[in-house]
Amino acid sequence: MSDSPDDVVLYEVADGVAILTFNRPERNNAWNLDLEFRYFDLLDAAEADPAVRVVVVTATGRCFCPGADFQRLDAKANGAPPPERRRPISYPFHIRKPMIAAINGPAAGLGLVQAALCDVRFAAVGTRMTTAFTRRGLIAEHLISWLLPRLVGHGVASDLLLSGRMFTAEEACAMGLVNRVVPAEDLLAETLAYAKDMAANCSPLAMAQVKQQLRADWLRSPEAALASFEELNLDPRRRAELREGVASFRERRPPRFPPLADVHQIGI
Amino acid sequence: MSDSPDDVVLYEVADGVAILTFNRPERNNAWNLDLEFRYFDLLDAAEADPAVRVVVVTATGRCFCPGADFQRLDAKANGAPPPERRRPISYPFHIRKPMIAAINGPAAGLGLVQAALCDVRFAAVGTRMTTAFTRRGLIAEHLISWLLPRLVGHGVASDLLLSGRMFTAEEACAMGLVNRVVPAEDLLAETLAYAKDMAANCSPLAMAQVKQQLRADWLRSPEAALASFEELNLDPRRRAELREGVASFRERRPPRFPPLADVHQIGI
Amino acid sequence: MSDSPDDVVLYEVADGVAILTFNRPERNNAWNLDLEFRYFDLLDAAEADPAVRVVVVTATGRCFCPGADFQRLDAKANGAPPPERRRPISYPFHIRKPMIAAINGPAAGLGLVQAALCDVRFAAVGTRMTTAFTRRGLIAEHLISWLLPRLVGHGVASDLLLSGRMFTAEEACAMGLVNRVVPAEDLLAETLAYAKDMAANCSPLAMAQVKQQLRADWLRSPEAALASFEELNLDPRRRAELREGVASFRERRPPRFPPLADVHQIGI
Repeated sequence: MSDSPDDVVLYEVADGVAILTFNRPERNNAWNLDLEFRYFDLLDAAEADPAVRVVVVTATGRCFCPGADFQRLDAKANGAPPPERRRPISYPFHIRKPMIAAINGPAAGLGLVQAALCDVRFAAVGTRMTTAFTRRGLIAEHLISWLLPRLVGHGVASDLLLSGRMFTAEEACAMGLVNRVVPAEDLLAETLAYAKDMAANCSPLAMAQVKQQLRADWLRSPEAALASFEELNLDPRRRAELREGVASFRERRPPRFPPLADVHQIGI
Repeated sequence: MSDSPDDVVLYEVADGVAILTFNRPERNNAWNLDLEFRYFDLLDAAEADPAVRVVVVTATGRCFCPGADFQRLDAKANGAPPPERRRPISYPFHIRKPMIAAINGPAAGLGLVQAALCDVRFAAVGTRMTTAFTRRGLIAEHLISWLLPRLVGHGVASDLLLSGRMFTAEEACAMGLVNRVVPAEDLLAETLAYAKDMAANCSPLAMAQVKQQLRADWLRSPEAALASFEELNLDPRRRAELREGVASFRERRPPRFPPLADVHQIGI
Repeated sequence: MSDSPDDVVLYEVADGVAILTFNRPERNNAWNLDLEFRYFDLLDAAEADPAVRVVVVTATGRCFCPGADFQRLDAKANGAPPPERRRPISYPFHIRKPMIAAINGPAAGLGLVQAALCDVRFAAVGTRMTTAFTRRGLIAEHLISWLLPRLVGHGVASDLLLSGRMFTAEEACAMGLVNRVVPAEDLLAETLAYAKDMAANCSPLAMAQVKQQLRADWLRSPEAALASFEELNLDPRRRAELREGVASFRERRPPRFPPLADVHQIGI
């Protein structure tokens, strides 16, 4: 059923939140080109849809994603040329809307990379994770060597990337890789509650700009970071947003921030 | 009483430690220009006073600082030009002496930024904190997008800055944003004990230089960081300081390090 | 006995792991030139030996290393010129093979720096540590101002480097400075089990390249990090390593990755 390119990733929108669900449960959601292309198409759809303010990524079955499908690894090991791609495997890094991973089960290799490319991660109690790369003769793939030390610190990232050992969601939460550990049966509901709260109460424009600030500031001096903030703060839309933010706070009602209508105009 | 610009921030020096206390308790210490200008003037006084080796920042009443006063936010939202400032809101970042925040109660928005601009943070048990910005239509303000990911990691900073959710001092301590959580009734005493120990036992020159090393090294290669260390180590004052540091250790007595007499000559 | 330059650091290789043991127990393993030169010579030997895939660093007696020997500090304080060195004190940072510290007892000053220069750190329950520098009139020495904020975050590093206070292995583990805390009697066995697992199961080439990725990516943009990954991924040895990694996984047997024969050819 999930072999059709259309339902290899499921898509659903409600209350400002798009839920994207990896759906190859018979292969534990192993990463192949069907899944990759469909996932990225759906991210483009979520990015373009003004009804979507926050994106949640999860999976069906008992795994989140165990990494690349063995057929892909075999082809790569045997010298097959890499497939034609419009978008790199790290494509989700460029989505402007907040992405929350609900890690429902084991995440390894590329599966862990995809979780790390989200902004925030919730995980089910006891979930096992691993980078796995050095155990397959691979290096730190697709931005994980940039992301992981910034998520968990250099020493913890060294442990996880050099040894490729298994670790649990509980360890990942203490490390800062996972933001919240939730009983499996509550994971999706709790992730959605968090995402819907953001969709209802946080400015889509501000969230998109904060994502860019957080990433760009890693390479900036404090002076350059401050100059960038001051420039973003001149955005003419900011005044109306602040007025609505303050008014809604005073009136104890949800704010009415406009959608991120045109993602090419977030001003960064 | 605290409407007079003079006592909107209190100032007291003892045992090498200056205590600066936000003192608008009837407004929960909300940040306005009176408080800002007085706070920065007192930081300048602490910086210039050779009797001050360490600065502690705290507040009266039940709050630390809930952020900008609503009058300011209203004026900003209605297009009032920003007030004339000699010093940016992130001015405390440039103080050469160690700054310790004793967060006695809720800290939000600009209040959290001011706490983050200190070097070390102690907080009262159960204290609630929030960035709050995206909920008011604002981005990450005044260096917090530079500081927060370096304090707590990229994923935790994404959670706090994108969602603007409330979190507690205990969470903040696990994240690395707060260094120690202390029962409210012991907070000031324990912060002062820490600060006075630094004032009595740590070299003011070395502390000022360490602050600069820590900040500058974020943008440096390991090679450049090492070269910078080696240059600082040539400081002719270092030899006398080391001699006193070693002698005092051997003689089991407090060292007698000179004050940071001229803050313009710390050699960086 | 340990005054002879030859046994001031012990050396032993088994199961792909070299164990280097600081061995001046009568001086608590204080750092002097004999120890430094011998340690670095043995690191060179481990680096050059194809039988060595992982390096473990530990110490005899009750201390790991309390820092510089007082004779050195006295000479430095009295203006003696720094000794002639072929290799800087931060030399272990340049070793291509994974280095695991087994911190068996107190680590202070240069001793803590040497532990921080390793990739991964295990420590005995209750072990006390301190940077100590500002208490001796010193700044953050030999890369520790580059490393520590990347290991534990800016606020925790500020606390440890400004105050020079004592902290425990348990605190260090919560901070991310220590990866695992182990009862003293099990420390070496557990560290060796971890190191031997890496030696048996992880690609030496991939581990060397991951070390370089992790360090270089601190200064890179995400785009540059991705480009560097893609270039490393073109390494012609990668395909054979991946084939062996996948085959061994399928066959449920340890992989047979080649040794890091020529450390000058890791492709970075």
